[in-house]
Amino acid sequence: DEGRHQFTLKTAKETLTGKYGEDSKLIYDLKDQGGELLSLRYDLTVPFARYLAMNKVTNIKRYHIAKVYRRDNPAMTRGRYREFYQCDFDIAGQYDPMIPDAECLKIVHEILSELELGDFRIKVNDRRILDGMFAVCGVPDDKFRTICSTVDKLDKMSWEDVRSEMVKEKGLSEEAADQIGQYVSLQGGMDLAERLLQDAKMSQSKQACAGLTDMKQLFSYLQLFQVTDKVVFDLSLARGLDYYTGVIYEAILTQTGPVPVAATQNGAGEKAEEGVSVGSVAGGGRYDGLVGMFDPKGRKVPCVGVSIGIERVFSIMEQKAEASAEKVRTTETQVMVASAQKNLLEERLRLTAELWNAGIKAEVMYKKNPKLLSQLQHCEDSGIPLVAIIGEQELKDGVVKLRTVHSREEIDVSRAELVEEIKRRTSDV
Amino acid sequence: DEGRHQFTLKTAKETLTGKYGEDSKLIYDLKDQGGELLSLRYDLTVPFARYLAMNKVTNIKRYHIAKVYRRDNPAMTRGRYREFYQCDFDIAGQYDPMIPDAECLKIVHEILSELELGDFRIKVNDRRILDGMFAVCGVPDDKFRTICSTVDKLDKMSWEDVRSEMVKEKGLSEEAADQIGQYVSLQGGMDLAERLLQDAKMSQSKQACAGLTDMKQLFSYLQLFQVTDKVVFDLSLARGLDYYTGVIYEAILTQTGPVPVAATQNGAGEKAEEGVSVGSVAGGGRYDGLVGMFDPKGRKVPCVGVSIGIERVFSIMEQKAEASAEKVRTTETQVMVASAQKNLLEERLRLTAELWNAGIKAEVMYKKNPKLLSQLQHCEDSGIPLVAIIGEQELKDGVVKLRTVHSREEIDVSRAELVEEIKRRTSDV
Repeated sequence: DEGRHQFTLKTAKETLTGKYGEDSKLIYDLKDQGGELLSLRYDLTVPFARYLAMNKVTNIKRYHIAKVYRRDNPAMTRGRYREFYQCDFDIAGQYDPMIPDAECLKIVHEILSELELGDFRIKVNDRRILDGMFAVCGVPDDKFRTICSTVDKLDKMSWEDVRSEMVKEKGLSEEAADQIGQYVSLQGGMDLAERLLQDAKMSQSKQACAGLTDMKQLFSYLQLFQVTDKVVFDLSLARGLDYYTGVIYEAILTQTGPVPVAATQNGAGEKAEEGVSVGSVAGGGRYDGLVGMFDPKGRKVPCVGVSIGIERVFSIMEQKAEASAEKVRTTETQVMVASAQKNLLEERLRLTAELWNAGIKAEVMYKKNPKLLSQLQHCEDSGIPLVAIIGEQELKDGVVKLRTVHSREEIDVSRAELVEEIKRRTSDV
Repeated sequence: DEGRHQFTLKTAKETLTGKYGEDSKLIYDLKDQGGELLSLRYDLTVPFARYLAMNKVTNIKRYHIAKVYRRDNPAMTRGRYREFYQCDFDIAGQYDPMIPDAECLKIVHEILSELELGDFRIKVNDRRILDGMFAVCGVPDDKFRTICSTVDKLDKMSWEDVRSEMVKEKGLSEEAADQIGQYVSLQGGMDLAERLLQDAKMSQSKQACAGLTDMKQLFSYLQLFQVTDKVVFDLSLARGLDYYTGVIYEAILTQTGPVPVAATQNGAGEKAEEGVSVGSVAGGGRYDGLVGMFDPKGRKVPCVGVSIGIERVFSIMEQKAEASAEKVRTTETQVMVASAQKNLLEERLRLTAELWNAGIKAEVMYKKNPKLLSQLQHCEDSGIPLVAIIGEQELKDGVVKLRTVHSREEIDVSRAELVEEIKRRTSDV
């Protein structure tokens, strides 16, 4: 696990001192950069928005996997770090409503399905529906954000505790709190959006109606994408970040057992993380105002995006592999070029280069006379599936003994057919 | 070009302020981290060595592409940044001499050949040969490093200027300088290493002999790897970094024309960069002492590595593409799902999802009724090779009109055979 965190950007100065000779003057100390107050990036979304504004990009679709920094309390054992990876996908541009939003959800569905992390659900809601709901329930305008962040805790607190926080800590009226309570218990699909559009109170809010109309549209696209089996319109989904303006979503793993233990860890994708719900592995939403905040003329570029909590996903995958006693393959190497006899280093190197030149991922031990057993053991340990063994006899016959590591089966393959045979036998790994 | 530099880790604090709501407290300011003096990493080699020592890793082979930071004068127009990517490959472990070293050179050869950047040469030398040479030429011990860094300037200064710097600025005797001058003019291969082993003066240095013996060994492996056509043993190659202990190398582009202009840019891989020779695109060497400097007990892990100057490589590739008026493909998308008629958004989305589910990289315009021309234009612009066009007639007939963008040829393909047909037609892109 440490392997994914091996290279940190910040480094104690003494680590670098005395290593670079005359170039040392170029070491980038952060202490005295001309009085600028600098920060390390907190997520990938805000820098993305700034980039679009600065470079006048009006439409783009991209993914980005990179590190972000949080001045949080690290908890190494729970996979929670101050420096960690995020994996974001965003679509920016002025388009017809809900088409890119639906694609983001399709992508979350596809990733979580393909990774086989267990059953999952994707909750969706809309900032406009939340704000409309707060308005019609009698929440004062200036309390929308703080009440919203209390609602956001429903995934880890009971309704009673959430209600109590709203009323006692945040000064909301009991009546308003109870009305919110009725709405946030609702879950459904296109039908629920339809019903709320007819709802006497909700339909009074233009904002809510706009959100609900879009929600219906979204579900119609999700049907075309065949992902409605996992998507739930859930009025309790709030999400804390200020920059969301429309649809918001969050994917959670619903399986019980050893997996959700890992899934409760923090420190992964922030959009996913902030929910801190058990098993939250992805999240995101629409942020139509963020680019405009960086544009000198305030020009807006509508955006929608998703963040996959890859550190969390990896830790779940590792725990699953551990639980099933399955070896995680740590190499892409297809074949190890080996020998049982001495003084064949040159022949091993020659064959290795032949395989490399043919596009085969081959490895060879950097020893003049390694033992066959240690060569085979290395394949077992790192999951290399094949061994190409050469000896005096094989060289004379123009063949290679190709050994399948897991079955220990060995066959003679002519040198001319070796590349194709290796490709054939490793096409599935 | 800006695209590769879009996401910076350091961010003006105001960029982040007011975006995250209650989470803002987690923003990682670098100003007051408990009085620690922090630096951003300068290269990938020193952090790699520290990682090996801290985690007691005694052998590993890995590549790493990531950003490093230099407090250098940025020159954006010449592709020289304070923040830029490096691409390193290293082999750590106690092995028989020169086998991993040869693999590093094979990899440089393979990368530069496959990228088709033009003709290149890889210069090799050895720190021990340099030090032995300095010793037998009468350079005082305490001047080895400074004389070495003057020799390193031979790729951009004449011998006269280098000699003058050694004698006038660094106080070397004229006699010693002239003896160095004779050696550093030598270039060759295994034969030169052989000859220098017999050289009356050079053979007096044990260090030089060890380096020359290894150089012969290295060339014998390079012959097996079939890369000697590009590799030259060059006694003028010095390289500045303190941490090298054995073989050193540097790859340069030798082609003239528009390419070397880009190649003179700085700001790319440091191992490549420090040479600052015209066209330096990769470099590296053996550093057997670095890991031990981080190990509490001083345990050594021998290492050899190479750094590819990927920013420089990219800028050369872009210039070549520009010069040949060739369009750089900016997408991996295989097919655009399009329509000439109105009201077919749903059908387009359905087909797109079908293709996605079959593993095809498909795109669709996020508009209800885009014009066919704008859909085709987008394919032209971004290099999408195929368009799957549907209309009322195609839907009725259960076919798709598959258009090849560059030839404008269109054929009807049955819906059932579409995936295979797309795969067949895009297998080479």
